[in-house]
Amino acid sequence: MRAAVWYGREDIRIMDLPELVVGKDQVKIKVRWCGICGSDVHEYREGPMIISKKPHPLTGKSSPIILGHEFSGDVVEVGEDVKRIAVGNRVTINCLIYCGECLYCRLGEYNMCLKLATVGLAWDGAFAEFAVVPEYTVLKIPDAVTYEMASFAEPLAVAVRAVRRSRLKVGDTAVVIGAGPIGLLVLQAAKAAGASRVFAIEPVPHRRELARRLGANEVFDPVQGDMGKEIAERTEGFRANIAFECVGNQSAFDTAVRVTGRRAMIVMVGMALKSIEVPFFRLWGHEKEITTCTGYVDEYPAALAFLADRRVQVEPMITEKIGLEDFIEKGLKEMIRNPERHIKILVTPGREK
Amino acid sequence: MRAAVWYGREDIRIMDLPELVVGKDQVKIKVRWCGICGSDVHEYREGPMIISKKPHPLTGKSSPIILGHEFSGDVVEVGEDVKRIAVGNRVTINCLIYCGECLYCRLGEYNMCLKLATVGLAWDGAFAEFAVVPEYTVLKIPDAVTYEMASFAEPLAVAVRAVRRSRLKVGDTAVVIGAGPIGLLVLQAAKAAGASRVFAIEPVPHRRELARRLGANEVFDPVQGDMGKEIAERTEGFRANIAFECVGNQSAFDTAVRVTGRRAMIVMVGMALKSIEVPFFRLWGHEKEITTCTGYVDEYPAALAFLADRRVQVEPMITEKIGLEDFIEKGLKEMIRNPERHIKILVTPGREK
Repeated sequence: MRAAVWYGREDIRIMDLPELVVGKDQVKIKVRWCGICGSDVHEYREGPMIISKKPHPLTGKSSPIILGHEFSGDVVEVGEDVKRIAVGNRVTINCLIYCGECLYCRLGEYNMCLKLATVGLAWDGAFAEFAVVPEYTVLKIPDAVTYEMASFAEPLAVAVRAVRRSRLKVGDTAVVIGAGPIGLLVLQAAKAAGASRVFAIEPVPHRRELARRLGANEVFDPVQGDMGKEIAERTEGFRANIAFECVGNQSAFDTAVRVTGRRAMIVMVGMALKSIEVPFFRLWGHEKEITTCTGYVDEYPAALAFLADRRVQVEPMITEKIGLEDFIEKGLKEMIRNPERHIKILVTPGREK
Repeated sequence: MRAAVWYGREDIRIMDLPELVVGKDQVKIKVRWCGICGSDVHEYREGPMIISKKPHPLTGKSSPIILGHEFSGDVVEVGEDVKRIAVGNRVTINCLIYCGECLYCRLGEYNMCLKLATVGLAWDGAFAEFAVVPEYTVLKIPDAVTYEMASFAEPLAVAVRAVRRSRLKVGDTAVVIGAGPIGLLVLQAAKAAGASRVFAIEPVPHRRELARRLGANEVFDPVQGDMGKEIAERTEGFRANIAFECVGNQSAFDTAVRVTGRRAMIVMVGMALKSIEVPFFRLWGHEKEITTCTGYVDEYPAALAFLADRRVQVEPMITEKIGLEDFIEKGLKEMIRNPERHIKILVTPGREK
């Protein structure tokens, strides 16, 4: 089968691989669409980041490895022990592979698994004609959800988890900082969670426009003034209850501090690779809190439900659809060349565009 | 009456003041004991920090001002509208004075009051023979609580709030970083909250010894090795559920990150005047959270109950008892000269030692 295989930094090869063998508890999926995640770009340009050259302690997998974890497809084969999933099912997957034995798995907190692995990073992924995954990762797609929409289930589960971790209560006011793919999904998930108003702060004009189209009550360019003052003016001085920091840098964090009011929660959604200076003396008097979120635990059913009833819209976020052969030039390199132009590029190994 | 009046940095005067007038809704307390708080030392040495030279928006009070907010005494006079409190009551006070009108006050979150004032910083305090305060601040002391013990109600309320903000659940493991006055109370409050084990990390030997005496399961000197490893070894590798950072600096925060496990909460109890660098990339994968706490809201009844039934012991924390005339030399200056020797110095305007 054809697949995009990560061999090293700036060395991803579109190549033929032997057909995959399906284990007893595994499911073989013919891939329809697979979204390019920011982490795929990072692995291409700066990797290995999460990809390991040593065998993963749980999956035994190391590079070379097939990238791709935001995908949908059709089940074409199941192992003999598979019961819940059948050939012909339209599916997506929860990308987390976990040991099921450690304390956290036993507590049901499998995103904290001591041996956690992610499909597409420590298990062969879905920039390929087929993917083979454990049955427990597979979720059926509701009829109302297209394959394109279902390829957003993974990042939407991340967004739903961010909102759950925020402890957002119905009626709260939220600010989303950074209207990239995750920010736009967090914005919609926050609305779905009952936020009375969600404001978005984003420097790129067409992303602001998209945020507005996807439900932001108001959008702001951060260079145009003091965001804290802008949000204060729209909240009778009380500022927001929650800020979702979907960028992951000092400036975005500082904005999160400014736009939030007393007793607020700041959710670090964007992964900050560099340390961030936190002025605790400012948070302290206002009893602000900071939380983090990684992956998801039980957020997929909600993500699929929101896609099915259109409370979360993802089609406007698709900025390009390409074939697998174009994955590097029109996918990864295009996102590096024109990072501001794209929200989500979907890749198909088929001919359907 | 005699009182210790803050006029400016390193300018506190023990002097005679006119007798206090008692307003209609106010209570006059003959002070028995008043503890010296770290913030009193800060105001003396580096102030004004919270003390203002402009009239406070709620109390109208500015310097010169009488310091002292951790106190107990006897009610000697009440205003004509006072109903709940009577002459002869043994009392302490909740030091927060709030407007009762802003959004936060209406929500019952009065420690977030937009005009918040603190007795002893923006209202005359209790390093004096008498203090006059609004009735709503006054709490009766249970019989089992001595005046000395009751002077700890305020810092203990701070500690109880820190534990409440931590969301500690019965059975959790906690680490207290810094066994000063607040750390030692947080340690005991965490035990009262059902922590299965509480470890204390503190560089000063006699404070470690005190932490052990007050219930720490084990105490550590931070210079003796990797605290993360020490705690991991005692928790089957899972480290602590909660860290109370009672110092307020980078080193203590870094320790809090190291000693805590996945899904942990770090509570910033110590006030960090300088920003702290937070490695969110490390917190992120483990879904760690950071919370803050300021003052108290409804934590006084718990504090008084814990004092009454001796679940929290404070007598061992009293390192000196002095008279008001010695407040500067044997109180403030002694704490500056020998910061490691003292936990709490109590001051009395009377002659009872």
